[in-house]
Amino acid sequence: MAVTEHEITFRVRYPEADPGGYVHHSQYFVYFEMGRTELLRANGHSYRDMEAAGVFVVVVRAECRYHRPARYDDMLRLRTRVLRVTAASIEHEYHLYREQELLAEARVLLCCVDRQGRPQRVPKWMLPGG
Amino acid sequence: MAVTEHEITFRVRYPEADPGGYVHHSQYFVYFEMGRTELLRANGHSYRDMEAAGVFVVVVRAECRYHRPARYDDMLRLRTRVLRVTAASIEHEYHLYREQELLAEARVLLCCVDRQGRPQRVPKWMLPGG
Amino acid sequence: MAVTEHEITFRVRYPEADPGGYVHHSQYFVYFEMGRTELLRANGHSYRDMEAAGVFVVVVRAECRYHRPARYDDMLRLRTRVLRVTAASIEHEYHLYREQELLAEARVLLCCVDRQGRPQRVPKWMLPGG
Amino acid sequence: MAVTEHEITFRVRYPEADPGGYVHHSQYFVYFEMGRTELLRANGHSYRDMEAAGVFVVVVRAECRYHRPARYDDMLRLRTRVLRVTAASIEHEYHLYREQELLAEARVLLCCVDRQGRPQRVPKWMLPGG
Repeated sequence: MAVTEHEITFRVRYPEADPGGYVHHSQYFVYFEMGRTELLRANGHSYRDMEAAGVFVVVVRAECRYHRPARYDDMLRLRTRVLRVTAASIEHEYHLYREQELLAEARVLLCCVDRQGRPQRVPKWMLPGG
Repeated sequence: MAVTEHEITFRVRYPEADPGGYVHHSQYFVYFEMGRTELLRANGHSYRDMEAAGVFVVVVRAECRYHRPARYDDMLRLRTRVLRVTAASIEHEYHLYREQELLAEARVLLCCVDRQGRPQRVPKWMLPGG
Repeated sequence: MAVTEHEITFRVRYPEADPGGYVHHSQYFVYFEMGRTELLRANGHSYRDMEAAGVFVVVVRAECRYHRPARYDDMLRLRTRVLRVTAASIEHEYHLYREQELLAEARVLLCCVDRQGRPQRVPKWMLPGG
Repeated sequence: MAVTEHEITFRVRYPEADPGGYVHHSQYFVYFEMGRTELLRANGHSYRDMEAAGVFVVVVRAECRYHRPARYDDMLRLRTRVLRVTAASIEHEYHLYREQELLAEARVLLCCVDRQGRPQRVPKWMLPGG
């Protein structure tokens, strides 16, 4: 991958916020997945094509620190960065902002598997410089 | 199907309610799907087994009237009833209650398709009396 | 409202599709809500401001016909149109497309209420020509 | 709190699983929230009453390790345990099982805040022995 860092912006949808008025903490992981999907697309690839080719990406570990709450209708900005790559795994780092304010930071570790769930090497083109 | 009417109870989860404090209207259709899944199970069948056998159920039409809002942590009671069955479709009717209060009523029309999305006859055992 | 028809485009996210590979039928109502939110914004207003001002919009009736399934990563196009307005309600019509293919059409009837859930007149500025 | 450990069982719903056939990783955090809600209820309390009383609980940090995938229609068993309590925070530990198989383990750190988002002491009755 030539591009190892990418930014997207998006607006918080109504049902993504909970009765407390804040975006539910589980929802952030959906945003992070959008971030790495678009980072992949910026390199000319797509998860949909990967799955059609029999390469599935599963989440092995996910962690997030929530600094400030996001709210309904907020415009958010998410920076996604490749943090670490091994033979069978890839880890991204995420920083979520509302304007200049850091709302959350996270790391998600992915592993490549085949249709039966057996570990597979990360495709060459997913690697930095690949 | 020997059983054509079935009732489930369940509690509203936190992220199912929105910043207005009410269960989001889209969420009701998830509840209705739970209702018909458990009606099917009460007849000794499961959608998971159906899908494994290559029979998929798609929603063709869905409509709901919302009378009173449901709230976070409410215990709800859903009655599901088979309304109409044709060669390739099955329609259920739903009534959602909080205690004796009717919150919503709905109809959802399903069609059976194969893995390629082509219409298929409703399996015999899904029919009333089947 | 000067603008009574509006179009948005967006991409289907991974968890919006279900194990059958199709976007879950409940999810369409989230898309429709995005459509009417952006129609309102095109008129210079926002639901967030309305709620801050004590005007809440609740869904009274929702119906959708599903013609063709949407899939993960599809780019979709949603046309939202004001269909009917009365003293206390507003109904929109929705057409969802993938390129030129009509995937679904829907109507959602909204009612304006105050913080206690009592019906309120539709704010003047929400009316066509308002 | 007299009870510091609690177990719930529940069935995976259809839209909680994604096109890969597995429960989406974000969904686990909704399950964990159900676990701590029921642990609180086992002690005679509810988050809904807390919120009505002006005490809100926000997630400060969440992490999960995913060992084996959960699938649609699986019956799952979640053990929730109070791990650590400080003046203003409470951390739970979660173990998610399908029968005897450990699917995931997680920790979520909560902080008590008031309606304006300012930190508040954990209510006495939330403390072990409280």
